[in-house]
Amino acid sequence: MNERNIPPAVISRLPRYYRYIEELMSEGIERVSSSQLSEMMNVTASQIRQDLNHFGGFGQQGYGYNVRFLHDEICHILGLDKVHNMIIIGCGNLGRAIANYGNFKSRGFNIIGIFDINSELKGMEGLGAPVYMMDELDEFLKDNKVDIVVIAIPKHEAIKLVEPIVKAKVKAVWNFSHTDLPFPDNVTVENVHLSESLMVLSYRMGENDLDHSK
Amino acid sequence: MNERNIPPAVISRLPRYYRYIEELMSEGIERVSSSQLSEMMNVTASQIRQDLNHFGGFGQQGYGYNVRFLHDEICHILGLDKVHNMIIIGCGNLGRAIANYGNFKSRGFNIIGIFDINSELKGMEGLGAPVYMMDELDEFLKDNKVDIVVIAIPKHEAIKLVEPIVKAKVKAVWNFSHTDLPFPDNVTVENVHLSESLMVLSYRMGENDLDHSK
Repeated sequence: MNERNIPPAVISRLPRYYRYIEELMSEGIERVSSSQLSEMMNVTASQIRQDLNHFGGFGQQGYGYNVRFLHDEICHILGLDKVHNMIIIGCGNLGRAIANYGNFKSRGFNIIGIFDINSELKGMEGLGAPVYMMDELDEFLKDNKVDIVVIAIPKHEAIKLVEPIVKAKVKAVWNFSHTDLPFPDNVTVENVHLSESLMVLSYRMGENDLDHSK
Repeated sequence: MNERNIPPAVISRLPRYYRYIEELMSEGIERVSSSQLSEMMNVTASQIRQDLNHFGGFGQQGYGYNVRFLHDEICHILGLDKVHNMIIIGCGNLGRAIANYGNFKSRGFNIIGIFDINSELKGMEGLGAPVYMMDELDEFLKDNKVDIVVIAIPKHEAIKLVEPIVKAKVKAVWNFSHTDLPFPDNVTVENVHLSESLMVLSYRMGENDLDHSK
């Protein structure tokens, strides 16, 4: 199967499919039709068929989709069948929220360390991974295979991480700091800018007001 | 100015423009050309001109954009020139991270309460807003104008919030719970599904590996 040339819009919808398919699996459901998925997900059945067709002929007329097969395929496409070692920089509220997010581990995202400058946190337990001090980071990156660095510190501190991350050949960065970090192309960066999401919400509220005041 | 009919893709880019324009303002810069913005933002100058043209003729040939004017217009389009009262449901790590996010207030997002079921948190200080108990929510929604409810609790609890939020005629929900909540169309919902963002990162890592192993 050629996984290339899948439109980015389809890719961006895959995690949502995965979430629904996972739920069906956990309920022991073995088959699902595009119209059932359509109703659950509030997406047209034709959109679902089009999206899932990108990955080959999963569906069978009059039978629907095999839930486990769909699950395993999407899992594979998203790379969730691999184990990714992850560290979190910043043991503030956001860093802890990410560390405590239970689902990550079951999806192969293995948090192996959390880094902070606050020496009171050193050795702190209950976060599922040891807390290290920032001055231990370079050594840690040398000694451990780290696939993903999660950045959960303010932007002026975040910028200082670019060099050590590139030097350690880390593949990917999940960036929660409020800035775009200048990584080269071979580092995959996914930004989560919370305030931007709130601004989009604010814009859409205004639009919705107009729609409902007509 | 007609704010309607702006393509969603353009809207989704506006917060990022706003972030850069805010930085220019804070540095006291009065004018910026599309090519300067292009270099800063790593977007083509023609894309910038196209995007900003949706809001009328901001730019002048050979002069560039007036930074303050651009700032004020984008601010207005995004509704950031209004004050939005916001409450946060859930005073766990994620709720606290959101409450502590300093930029929200300066952008008109006014956090007026945080709700939790843990009675030890009642009256807790240092979060910028009082902590209330969940059983005070209905009363609070009656007595206060709440524009945005931030949901930062697990999905099985989150679902119970739909009814009181709809009843209180709250305009918008910023949903961090790991599920799609069944709100009617007149409630604007913006979902932040962290695990989906991580799955997209995982997918893109795989793609990037292929690109750089050619």
